Amino acid sequence: MRYIIIGAVAGGASTAARLRRLDEHAEIIIFEKGEYISYANCGLPYYIGEVITDRNKLFVQTAASFNQRFNIDVRVLTEVTGIDPGKKTVTAENQVTGDVYEETYDKLVLSPGAGPIRPPLPGIGNDGIFTLRNVSDTDYIKKYIYHKQAKKAVVVGGGFIGLEMAENLHGLGLDVTIIEMGNQVMAPLDFPLAAIVQQHIRSLGVHLYLNNAVTGFEQTDGGLAVNLKSGDVLDADIVILSIGVRPDTRLAAGAGLKIGEGRGIYVNEYLQTSNPDIYAVGDAIEFENPITGQAMVTYLAGPANKQGRICANNIVMGNVQQYHGSINTAIVQVFGMTVGTAGTASKHLKAAGIKHTVSTTSSGSHAGYFPGAKQMTIQVAFSPDNGRLYNAQVAGFDGADKRLDILSSVIKRNGTIDELVEFEHAYAPPYSSAKDPVNMAGFVAENILLGRLNIFYWDETNKIGEDDLLLDVRSPEEYRAGYIGGAINIPIDELRGRMDELSTQKNIYIYCEAGLRGYLAQRILRQSGFNNVYNLSGGYRLWKNCTAETEQNTIEVVC
Amino acid sequence: MRYIIIGAVAGGASTAARLRRLDEHAEIIIFEKGEYISYANCGLPYYIGEVITDRNKLFVQTAASFNQRFNIDVRVLTEVTGIDPGKKTVTAENQVTGDVYEETYDKLVLSPGAGPIRPPLPGIGNDGIFTLRNVSDTDYIKKYIYHKQAKKAVVVGGGFIGLEMAENLHGLGLDVTIIEMGNQVMAPLDFPLAAIVQQHIRSLGVHLYLNNAVTGFEQTDGGLAVNLKSGDVLDADIVILSIGVRPDTRLAAGAGLKIGEGRGIYVNEYLQTSNPDIYAVGDAIEFENPITGQAMVTYLAGPANKQGRICANNIVMGNVQQYHGSINTAIVQVFGMTVGTAGTASKHLKAAGIKHTVSTTSSGSHAGYFPGAKQMTIQVAFSPDNGRLYNAQVAGFDGADKRLDILSSVIKRNGTIDELVEFEHAYAPPYSSAKDPVNMAGFVAENILLGRLNIFYWDETNKIGEDDLLLDVRSPEEYRAGYIGGAINIPIDELRGRMDELSTQKNIYIYCEAGLRGYLAQRILRQSGFNNVYNLSGGYRLWKNCTAETEQNTIEVVC
Ligand SMILES: Cc1cc2nc3c(=O)[nH]c(=O)nc-3n(C[C@H](O)[C@H](O)[C@H](O)COP(=O)(O)OP(=O)(O)OC[C@H]3O[C@@H](n4cnc5c(N)ncnc54)[C@H](O)[C@@H]3O)c2cc1C
Ligand SMILES: Cc1cc2nc3c(=O)[nH]c(=O)nc-3n(C[C@H](O)[C@H](O)[C@H](O)COP(=O)(O)OP(=O)(O)OC[C@H]3O[C@@H](n4cnc5c(N)ncnc54)[C@H](O)[C@@H]3O)c2cc1C
Ligand SMILES: CC(C)(COP(=O)(O)OP(=O)(O)OC[C@H]1O[C@@H](n2cnc3c(N)ncnc32)[C@H](O)[C@@H]1OP(=O)(O)O)[C@@H](O)C(=O)NCCC(=O)NCCS
Ligand SMILES: CC(C)(COP(=O)(O)OP(=O)(O)OC[C@H]1O[C@@H](n2cnc3c(N)ncnc32)[C@H](O)[C@@H]1OP(=O)(O)O)[C@@H](O)C(=O)NCCC(=O)NCCS
Repeated sequence: MRYIIIGAVAGGASTAARLRRLDEHAEIIIFEKGEYISYANCGLPYYIGEVITDRNKLFVQTAASFNQRFNIDVRVLTEVTGIDPGKKTVTAENQVTGDVYEETYDKLVLSPGAGPIRPPLPGIGNDGIFTLRNVSDTDYIKKYIYHKQAKKAVVVGGGFIGLEMAENLHGLGLDVTIIEMGNQVMAPLDFPLAAIVQQHIRSLGVHLYLNNAVTGFEQTDGGLAVNLKSGDVLDADIVILSIGVRPDTRLAAGAGLKIGEGRGIYVNEYLQTSNPDIYAVGDAIEFENPITGQAMVTYLAGPANKQGRICANNIVMGNVQQYHGSINTAIVQVFGMTVGTAGTASKHLKAAGIKHTVSTTSSGSHAGYFPGAKQMTIQVAFSPDNGRLYNAQVAGFDGADKRLDILSSVIKRNGTIDELVEFEHAYAPPYSSAKDPVNMAGFVAENILLGRLNIFYWDETNKIGEDDLLLDVRSPEEYRAGYIGGAINIPIDELRGRMDELSTQKNIYIYCEAGLRGYLAQRILRQSGFNNVYNLSGGYRLWKNCTAETEQNTIEVVC
Repeated sequence: MRYIIIGAVAGGASTAARLRRLDEHAEIIIFEKGEYISYANCGLPYYIGEVITDRNKLFVQTAASFNQRFNIDVRVLTEVTGIDPGKKTVTAENQVTGDVYEETYDKLVLSPGAGPIRPPLPGIGNDGIFTLRNVSDTDYIKKYIYHKQAKKAVVVGGGFIGLEMAENLHGLGLDVTIIEMGNQVMAPLDFPLAAIVQQHIRSLGVHLYLNNAVTGFEQTDGGLAVNLKSGDVLDADIVILSIGVRPDTRLAAGAGLKIGEGRGIYVNEYLQTSNPDIYAVGDAIEFENPITGQAMVTYLAGPANKQGRICANNIVMGNVQQYHGSINTAIVQVFGMTVGTAGTASKHLKAAGIKHTVSTTSSGSHAGYFPGAKQMTIQVAFSPDNGRLYNAQVAGFDGADKRLDILSSVIKRNGTIDELVEFEHAYAPPYSSAKDPVNMAGFVAENILLGRLNIFYWDETNKIGEDDLLLDVRSPEEYRAGYIGGAINIPIDELRGRMDELSTQKNIYIYCEAGLRGYLAQRILRQSGFNNVYNLSGGYRLWKNCTAETEQNTIEVVC
C-alpha cells in the first residue's frame, strides 16, 4: 500500500502517524510545501508575544524525527501542484531545486488547510502588512517588530487570531488598535458575550473600532497610514490582517473533486471526497453542521487532529468510522479573559430557523468564601420544546474553560438542559460551589422551560412603556450606583411588605444585578396576584455591558 | 401547608429555599440545634488554615437574613428530639431556655447530616483532641492552636477532610503527621492514584504512617502522646480525628422509619422515607449506587444541595422528580495537588463483581509549548464488553478538576469511552492541547477495547519470568536515570532496526515513561511477527510511584 498525504501539519501529520500505527508496512509519503512540518500554528501569536520564548517548542515533530519515529517519507519544501485521479498520481515540485516529478498513490489524503484572506486593497503590498498562518509568517513579523522597533500596531479583524495578536502585541508594549467590520468582535458569539469582551478590551486601553473597515494603506515617513471607511486615518508601524481564512480547495478543484456549498472540499461521513481513493481532512473540508444541518467549515486544530485519526481508520480498515461533525467548540484568551463558545449561536440558530430560548446566568468560578473566585457569564440556548441544548457561550476568567467543555460535551451528544441540572461536579472550595455554574445555568433554563420563570432581554428594556413598571430589587446602594432609567427600587427583602405599592394590572419588569433576586421577586409576585411579571435575563450587569457597547443607546443610564 | 425541616445547612436550607420559591404561602419552620445555619462546612479547614480570613464569609445565610429573604421561621439552638409520625408532630427543645414543645407538620424533611466518628479509645477525652464538623468545632480548634501555640499536629485518618486539615495545619507552620489505618490515603481512590498523592505529601516533609492505627492518647507535660499500634509514640500539641462520619439516623430510627442496608435513612426514588409524609436528604440518607446497584451514602455537599431541590419539588408538586443517585464525584486539594474521583473505583467494582478494564494515561494540562503546563494522571475503568465508563480518577494540578468534571458527566449518564474519543473540547494553548487529556484517555481505552493495545499493570512486573523480555523503549538517558530491574533498553526510534535482538518466541513486556512510546513499539512489533507483546499501563512513572509506596517492594529499582 502506498499512501500519499498533502500537508504535514495538524490534519496531515495526525493522519500519517495513525496510518503508520495501523499499517506498519505501508509506504507513506507526506508532502509539505513549507519548510516545517507538525508545528504549533496555535502557538504562533504567543511566540510573537514572547510568551513562548523558545522557538524550538513550536515544532512537535521535525521532518527528521517524524521519519525516524514513524518511518514516513517526509518531503518538505515540496508543493503538490496537481492530482490526476485517473492515473492516481500527484505532481510534486521541489521548491529548492525546481524539480518536478510524479508519485503514484493507492490512497491520497488532502490536508492543505486554509489560507488567510488578503483583500486587494490599495497599498496592501506595502512593507509591514502581514497575515499570520505559518512559521515563516511568524519569523517575518517578529523580525519586523524588532528591527522597526514598532510602537503602534493596527490589527484588522476582531476574530480569534486577531484578538490573540492584539493581546500579544499589547503585551510587547505596543499601542494596539483593532478594526472590525462587524458590530462586534468574535463573530461566532452573540452580541452580549462579545460586549463583555469588548468592554474588557477597552478597559485595558486598547482601541477598538467597530462597524468600520480599512479602505487602504499608504506608506508614510514613519510607517503606514491606515485609511478607514469612517474617514479616520490611523498611524501604524505594523498591520496584522486577520480578516479570515478560506479553505484551500485549489488542488481539489483542479482534480475535479466536488467542492461543497460551504466552499470547502466535500467529504462524506467517512471523510472521503467525491473520489473514493481520495480522503480529506482539516480546515479545507466541509461537513454537515450537526445542529443546523447546513454545510460548514471549521478552522480548528482539535477537529483537524481527530479527523486525521478517523480518516486513517477508514483508509486502512475500509470506512469503519463515521465522522459526526464538529459543533465548533472554540475558546480564546483575550487580554487575560477566557471566552468561548460551543454549538450554534442564537443569531445563527435564528438564521437557520431553529426555535430556541436564550438564558444568561452569572456565577463564581468557585465558592465565594474561598479566596480568588471570579465571576463568569454563561449564555445557553436551548429548544423550548424538548430542552435540547444548542449552544453555550462563556466569558470569564479562572474555570470558564472548564464550564465550556462540560457544556460542549452535552451539546455534542444532543443532550438537554436536564443534564445540566443533574450534572454531578467535583466540589471542594478551590474548584466550584455546591451548585456548579453549569447546574445554575441548568436550573434557570429549566425554570424558563417549565414556565416558572418568565424573562425578558436587555434589548427589550426600551419596549417598556408608560403603563408598565420597571422594578429594581437590588439594595439601595446598588441602585444608587447606577440603574436602568425609569426603574423604581424595592429591595427584594422588603418586597413582601411593600406589594401594595405595585399594581396587579401592570406588566412588571424586574431586574437585579445578575438575575437571582429578580427571580425570587418574580416567584413572590406571581404567587400574589401579579400575573405579568418578567425578569431581566443576565440582570443589570449584562444590560450594562450591552448598552455600553450599543452606539445607538436610547436608554438613559443613570449613574 | 406546614413544612418542617430538621437541619439548616446544605440539605435542609436548600430544601427550605426551594420550598418557598415553589410555595409562597406555606408555613415553613426550620430547626437547627447548632447556633448557625447555612454555613460552609467545606470551608472550615481553610478558615482554620487562615486561607479564609474573614469568619463571616463562612455564612451563606444567617437566621435573620434567611428569614427576611425567604419568610422562613428559623429556630436555631433548637434540637428536635423526637418525631411522632402518627400525630405528625415533632418535639423540639430550646437549647438555651430548655423549653420543650411540639409542632405539627403536613410534610417533614430530615436533613440532620452525619456525625464524626469518635472511637472510645483510652484518653480520647483529653484536651486537644478534636473532630471537625461545624462552626463551633472550628472555633474551638482555631482557639486551641492559637492559645497553645501548637507546633505539632497529628491527623488521624487520611480521608478528604483529614488531608485538608493536614494541608491547612502545615500551611500554618505546624509539623504534621498523618496516621491512616488502611494501606493508602483517600479510600475512594485505587492504590495507584493514592500512591501519587502519598509521594507528593511525603515530598513536602509531611509524615505519613500507613497500615497503622491509634491505640490511645496520654496527656504529657507538653501536650499529648499518641500511641500507635506499631508501638510508635508520637508527640502532639493537637490531634484532629478524621476517621469518618456516620449518617445521623437517630431521629429517623426513633420514629420507626426504615434504616437501610447502608446504615442511612432509607428513601425511595422521590427521597421519601418509609413514611410518605417524611422526606429526607443529605448525608443521612442512603440510595442505590447507579453503578453497582448497592446501597450507598455520600457525604458530599453537591448531592445534598441537589437532593434538597428535588425533595422540595416532590413535596410541593407531588413526587414529580426522581433522584437518580450520586456517582460520588469528589475532589480535594492536597498540598496544592488536585485529586479526585467519579464513579466506582476498580477495587469496589471488583468487590461488586463488575467486570472492567483499567487504563492509565498521563497528559499535560495544556499545550506543552505554552508555559506552565503540568502533567496530570487519569485512570479510567470501563466495561470490556460495551465500553461503558464506570470510573475516572485524576491527580494533577491545573486543569485536573476540569477533566474530572467532564469524565463525571460521561459516567453520570452511563456514557461509553466513545464519548471520550469524540469529546470536542475548547482548545487554545492556555487551556488544552489539540487532543485533550480526556480524548487521550479515550483513544487509549478504545485501543485496549478493540485489541489494538495489550497492556499489563505495575503490580504485574514481578510476574515477568526468566523466559520473558522486559523492554525499556525510552532514551538511553532516561534509562540510565532509573529503570525497572531486568529491563533491556532499545529506544523506540531504533526499534525497527534492532528487532533481530528480540525473539518472537518470548513474551515481551514493554514500557516507556508514560505509555505512548510503549504503544508505538507494540504496534511495530505486533505487525512484525511478535505476538505476545504487552505495554505497561501508566508507564514507568506510575510504576515508580506505586513501587515506592509498596512496602513489600520485591522489584529492584535501579537508579
Ligand atoms: C495563528 C493561528 C492560531 C490558531 N489558534 C488556534 C487555536 O487556538 N485553537 C484551534 O483549535 N485552532 C487554532 N488555529 C487553527 C488551526 O491551526 C488549524 O485549524 C489547523 O492547523 C488546521 O489543520 P490543517 O491540517 O487543515 O491545516 P494546516 O495546519 O494549516 O496545514 C496545512 C499544510 O498544508 C500545506 N500545504 C497546502 N497546500 C499544499 C500543497 N499543495 N502541497 C504541499 N503542502 C501544502 C501548508 O503549507 C500547510 O503547512 C490557529 C491557526 C493559526 C494560523
Ligand atoms: C470539614 C468539612 C469539609 C467538607 N468539605 C466538603 C467538600 O469540599 N465538598 C463536599 O462536597 N462536601 C464537603 N463536606 C461535606 C458536606 O459539608 C456535607 O456533605 C453536607 O453539609 C451535608 O449536608 P446535610 O444537610 O446532610 O448535613 P449538614 O450540612 O451537616 O447539616 C445538618 C444539620 O442538621 C443539624 N441537626 C442534626 N440533628 C438535628 C436535630 N435533631 N435537630 C435540629 N438540628 C439538627 C446539625 O446541627 C447540622 O447543622 C465537608 C464536610 C466537613 C465537615
Ligand atoms: C503530533 C502529530 C504528528 C500527531 O501525532 P500522533 O501520534 O497522532 O499524536 P500524539 O503524539 O498525541 O499521540 C497520540 C497517540 O498516542 C496514544 N497514546 C497517548 N498516550 C498513551 C499512553 N499513555 N499509552 C498508550 N498510548 C498512548 C494515543 O492512543 C494515540 O494513538 P492512536 O491515535 O493510535 O490511538 C500531529 O498531531 C501534529 O503534527 N501536531 C502538531 C500540529 C498541530 O496539531 N497544530 C495545530 C495545533 S497547535
Ligand atoms: C444558600 C442556600 C440557603 C440555598 O439557597 P438557594 O436559594 O437554593 O440557592 P442559591 O442561592 O444558590 O440560588 C439558586 C436558585 O437561584 C436561581 N438562580 C440562580 N441564578 C439565577 C439567575 N441568574 N436568574 C434567575 N435565577 C437564578 C436558581 O435557578 C435556583 O433556583 P431554583 O432552585 O428555584 O431553580 C443553601 O444552599 C445553603 O444553606 N448553602 C450553604 C450550606 C452548604 O451548602 N454547605 C455545604 C457546602 S460548603
